[in-house]
Amino acid sequence: MEKVKIGIVGLGRLGMHHAQNLQYKVRNAELTAACSLVPEELEAARKRLGVQETYTDYAVMLENKALDAVFIASSTSEHAGHIAAAMKAGFHVFSEKPIALETAECLRVQKVVETHQQQVFMLGFQRRFDPSYIYAKEKIEANAIGTPFLVRSQTSDLDKYAEFQVAFTQASGGIFLDANVHDIDLARWYLKSELESVYAIGGCYEHKAFEQYQDADNTTALCRFKNGTMATISASRTAMHGHHTTTEILGTKGILRIGYTPAINRVEILDHYGVRQECVDDFYTRFETAFLLEAEEFINCIVEGRKPEITAEDGTRATEAAIALTRSYKENTLIRL
Amino acid sequence: MEKVKIGIVGLGRLGMHHAQNLQYKVRNAELTAACSLVPEELEAARKRLGVQETYTDYAVMLENKALDAVFIASSTSEHAGHIAAAMKAGFHVFSEKPIALETAECLRVQKVVETHQQQVFMLGFQRRFDPSYIYAKEKIEANAIGTPFLVRSQTSDLDKYAEFQVAFTQASGGIFLDANVHDIDLARWYLKSELESVYAIGGCYEHKAFEQYQDADNTTALCRFKNGTMATISASRTAMHGHHTTTEILGTKGILRIGYTPAINRVEILDHYGVRQECVDDFYTRFETAFLLEAEEFINCIVEGRKPEITAEDGTRATEAAIALTRSYKENTLIRL
Amino acid sequence: MEKVKIGIVGLGRLGMHHAQNLQYKVRNAELTAACSLVPEELEAARKRLGVQETYTDYAVMLENKALDAVFIASSTSEHAGHIAAAMKAGFHVFSEKPIALETAECLRVQKVVETHQQQVFMLGFQRRFDPSYIYAKEKIEANAIGTPFLVRSQTSDLDKYAEFQVAFTQASGGIFLDANVHDIDLARWYLKSELESVYAIGGCYEHKAFEQYQDADNTTALCRFKNGTMATISASRTAMHGHHTTTEILGTKGILRIGYTPAINRVEILDHYGVRQECVDDFYTRFETAFLLEAEEFINCIVEGRKPEITAEDGTRATEAAIALTRSYKENTLIRL
Amino acid sequence: MEKVKIGIVGLGRLGMHHAQNLQYKVRNAELTAACSLVPEELEAARKRLGVQETYTDYAVMLENKALDAVFIASSTSEHAGHIAAAMKAGFHVFSEKPIALETAECLRVQKVVETHQQQVFMLGFQRRFDPSYIYAKEKIEANAIGTPFLVRSQTSDLDKYAEFQVAFTQASGGIFLDANVHDIDLARWYLKSELESVYAIGGCYEHKAFEQYQDADNTTALCRFKNGTMATISASRTAMHGHHTTTEILGTKGILRIGYTPAINRVEILDHYGVRQECVDDFYTRFETAFLLEAEEFINCIVEGRKPEITAEDGTRATEAAIALTRSYKENTLIRL
Repeated sequence: MEKVKIGIVGLGRLGMHHAQNLQYKVRNAELTAACSLVPEELEAARKRLGVQETYTDYAVMLENKALDAVFIASSTSEHAGHIAAAMKAGFHVFSEKPIALETAECLRVQKVVETHQQQVFMLGFQRRFDPSYIYAKEKIEANAIGTPFLVRSQTSDLDKYAEFQVAFTQASGGIFLDANVHDIDLARWYLKSELESVYAIGGCYEHKAFEQYQDADNTTALCRFKNGTMATISASRTAMHGHHTTTEILGTKGILRIGYTPAINRVEILDHYGVRQECVDDFYTRFETAFLLEAEEFINCIVEGRKPEITAEDGTRATEAAIALTRSYKENTLIRL
Repeated sequence: MEKVKIGIVGLGRLGMHHAQNLQYKVRNAELTAACSLVPEELEAARKRLGVQETYTDYAVMLENKALDAVFIASSTSEHAGHIAAAMKAGFHVFSEKPIALETAECLRVQKVVETHQQQVFMLGFQRRFDPSYIYAKEKIEANAIGTPFLVRSQTSDLDKYAEFQVAFTQASGGIFLDANVHDIDLARWYLKSELESVYAIGGCYEHKAFEQYQDADNTTALCRFKNGTMATISASRTAMHGHHTTTEILGTKGILRIGYTPAINRVEILDHYGVRQECVDDFYTRFETAFLLEAEEFINCIVEGRKPEITAEDGTRATEAAIALTRSYKENTLIRL
Repeated sequence: MEKVKIGIVGLGRLGMHHAQNLQYKVRNAELTAACSLVPEELEAARKRLGVQETYTDYAVMLENKALDAVFIASSTSEHAGHIAAAMKAGFHVFSEKPIALETAECLRVQKVVETHQQQVFMLGFQRRFDPSYIYAKEKIEANAIGTPFLVRSQTSDLDKYAEFQVAFTQASGGIFLDANVHDIDLARWYLKSELESVYAIGGCYEHKAFEQYQDADNTTALCRFKNGTMATISASRTAMHGHHTTTEILGTKGILRIGYTPAINRVEILDHYGVRQECVDDFYTRFETAFLLEAEEFINCIVEGRKPEITAEDGTRATEAAIALTRSYKENTLIRL
Repeated sequence: MEKVKIGIVGLGRLGMHHAQNLQYKVRNAELTAACSLVPEELEAARKRLGVQETYTDYAVMLENKALDAVFIASSTSEHAGHIAAAMKAGFHVFSEKPIALETAECLRVQKVVETHQQQVFMLGFQRRFDPSYIYAKEKIEANAIGTPFLVRSQTSDLDKYAEFQVAFTQASGGIFLDANVHDIDLARWYLKSELESVYAIGGCYEHKAFEQYQDADNTTALCRFKNGTMATISASRTAMHGHHTTTEILGTKGILRIGYTPAINRVEILDHYGVRQECVDDFYTRFETAFLLEAEEFINCIVEGRKPEITAEDGTRATEAAIALTRSYKENTLIRL
């Protein structure tokens, strides 16, 4: 069968990660085009990945009708425009999260997506493709823990990356929009409901530089959902031990706990520090398999004429919720949605 | 040296546990008197513990001037009265938590305590005597995790005890006052600050019988402290795996995690359920050592003329906070203290 | 660049696993030919893997000079012949372990390999490519645990596969040759020495059917190496919890422990069985990444003109040692090599 | 009821530990006499433990007919003589292991014990009183793991104590008699059989000073039992992480694993070393509860007129086996018993 021909936009670290998966590891996929404003990135795409056609203008890439799909890994502020343009140009579209930093813009994009029902659209909530998160979902669907009523989810990044993130905080929308959209998406996925009220607090406990943007280095939010269930959502930029994404789902008949020790592998070290496991450094490592599986699912949906489980509405809802958390934090008050 | 002669009031399960420790395991202590309204309990005290003098009237026991100290394990609603009477009668006093279910009453008792500076008063926040909690405190004081900024603490009881707790919910003040005063005390201890605002949610996800008392079977609260730090405080009455008290303390340089697997011992079972550890059934088992160590500390304070670290004010503060959580839950709103 | 064209012989479960990796996941590899005596397997190769050329006669496949390399996953008794023929025909060769069930035959094959220095030969000791085992090796080389002096290694298979293995025991050479060659190879790798003496015991504790072949369902061997170091090597066919490969390396300054809980993923379940992790079912799952990485290394060696670290001599040594363990077990005596 | 009056001989670290338990923690026990050759130890017994009568001559202490029982914690070479004398003098006797360093002497003592059936004799195999080891025994008796066929047991001490142990190696009989008698006793207890053959190896991998006594700093032995079951028995003097006693019991239907992480408490530390638990320093800490429970059992046997499960024959058998391991190690050969 014909391989799905893909053009990617954005070749930063995550973009390059996707590009390599698409070119070498995803069956039925072929990365034939790449777009970036950075000449070195296009050079790398040609040399290291053998991408034939490279562009500096996204609109021009979209004129390439040999492409079947567009993979969007551009900067957050570009997502909405890039998605809409590619959908309108008739391509299948995969985009990194979030759709946008404002709800209204999400809704506009969502509408564009919904008016192109013949095309596949998928958003990069890669945790839903992590084998452990899938396993938890299957357990819940099989009624292994009764009815879920509380999700505790956190995203923690290594302290050594914090200073770099300061410059990035405005473009990313801040810690809730950047890190917690994933946790919010997971809570919605497992609890099957939408946020009703939220209270978010936190501070710049170690890195005061975030204060100038009303951002934080550590936050926690308590969320009540419309169906009466709960979630606590935390983010941290000061972890010393590793990238640490954890999620706990409490049900009436049992509990599932995901990722409590973010071990880098199956080795335990017994030395004068005790019995210990070393940990993954970043989310690329932690979710390496998930990034691959989500790309495979995107391609499989195209090949098999299916729609992904993740929709544009999921993206809108996550952004909407993250904005509510941000506002609660900035105003130090309870927000009801 | 002379042993400290103790009279105990209340010989329910926890009272009997204390009584056995005092009689057989605490050096320099001697349980010579017991007071209860239940004849069988007094019979047990005589027969099984060799307690010589038994009373049905607490006031009469307090007239026994051979006693040095009074140990209070009566029902929650009696604590305040029993503490005040014993302090006024000149005894050293150990009381189970909470002091009372209302702040005003706590303050009255606190004042009585503070006007009897020659007597030892201690409140049964036994977790502060658990070797793991002590170890965490020492690590923090030794600056092993930098500045603590977030405490996550939960108290979970086995589901099989839930139905029994329904009848008990009014007398105990509900789940926040009954279970979470411990977690609140720990958060105050580790974060060294007082609550500023709190939002508490939850529900009767499994046991609808709690609804009639506006109580819940699972709750979570998010607390902001005056020094800008945070705490999440949860309680559960539906655990299937065991009594599960966990506390996590996040600091700017590291994290301490206490009790994430409430294993009953050091045995792992590898069978067709996987690799697993069986868990402790109740807080008596989980905190067996802590109950003993707190009793020893009480006696040592008397013998050595010292004051315990835990004060009546700690009791007042914990009750005050638990009341705020309760109100936030019942009114579904943010409470600022 | 040109892809390495591969012909595979043997399309049983492991062969098909290799074939899929080669066809879809290994960069620079292309599976163009397959040989099997089973028509359904060739049909599957054509239909599911798109392999163009299929053979029932291995000698005929070797006449296909468009091939660059041969991948051998035939039955154990065929390995030696298949390796020698492919090497002599000028192909690069990857073969599943063991080379043969007798030392003399291993040595004959080893000689053939050594006389074809321009071709890559690699043996399927896939554990050396498992990320955890590599990590341990790197830690040791970086002197993290001082000098290794004891390796404890075991291979345990699920009890539910035991009855199937009875029929297979003669062709596989028995439990020491089938399961423990891997453990022996790891011990040699980490301890950097050869066996000096060995004592092996065991029995048919659950599956008496192995007795007729003087085979066992559980065994343990104690090995002394020429450099004075030690290894204990165990095998089990009666595990209830999962496939369980563990290796512990004790050094003078620390210990590394690999795979003590063979968890299937990062999920912990807290229910009435306790706190538990479910486990991997078989070595395909446990070593999925390793199988891929070893195939990549084989292809990379061809592409880059390198030789793999694993040599034919490693295969000979492992077989020789496994035979000594087998003899020690059958004769219930200490064997000195 | 009357308390059991006890005289202790030997007030070294372990003796003092026992003395404190007997005086303050064991119900129905009273430590009234102590014997030692070290004046400071007797002084400590008087001052810190309130022991009234102190002796430098063991024979004189045995003339004290107010005593009910003798607790022997003298040096290993004295055990046999002290046990026999106390039994003959009519006392109940608890003795630290081993009975003696030679089988013949064990048998002589065993005979003395067996001719005084009215007196309680108990040997200090304290691991049998550790809650985890008891739990494992109960699981096995309840058929939770089918038929046990392999015990893996090790005793590892911290490297920092090794140099001290050099001087002690002759008096203790070497590493097999000093450390492994416990492991041997556990293997016999769980496997319900006696040793048939044994092969022991090891070396001085870090501390060459043990070589002069033909002792080792790390050893492993493989044991075959008369009922066809197996055990591997290891000892180490070079652990960096903590005192590490582990025992694994493999049965036909499941596996029990005891003490794989010798955590000092329930705290996990997440810092730049990874996720870790700090470990117990020595066997006093690891077996603190067991030491108390064995003393309680000894007293309860006296009070209730029962005999302990552990017999003098258990002591003889363990010594006999440890001697076989020692001989196998020294002669580098298989020993059949």
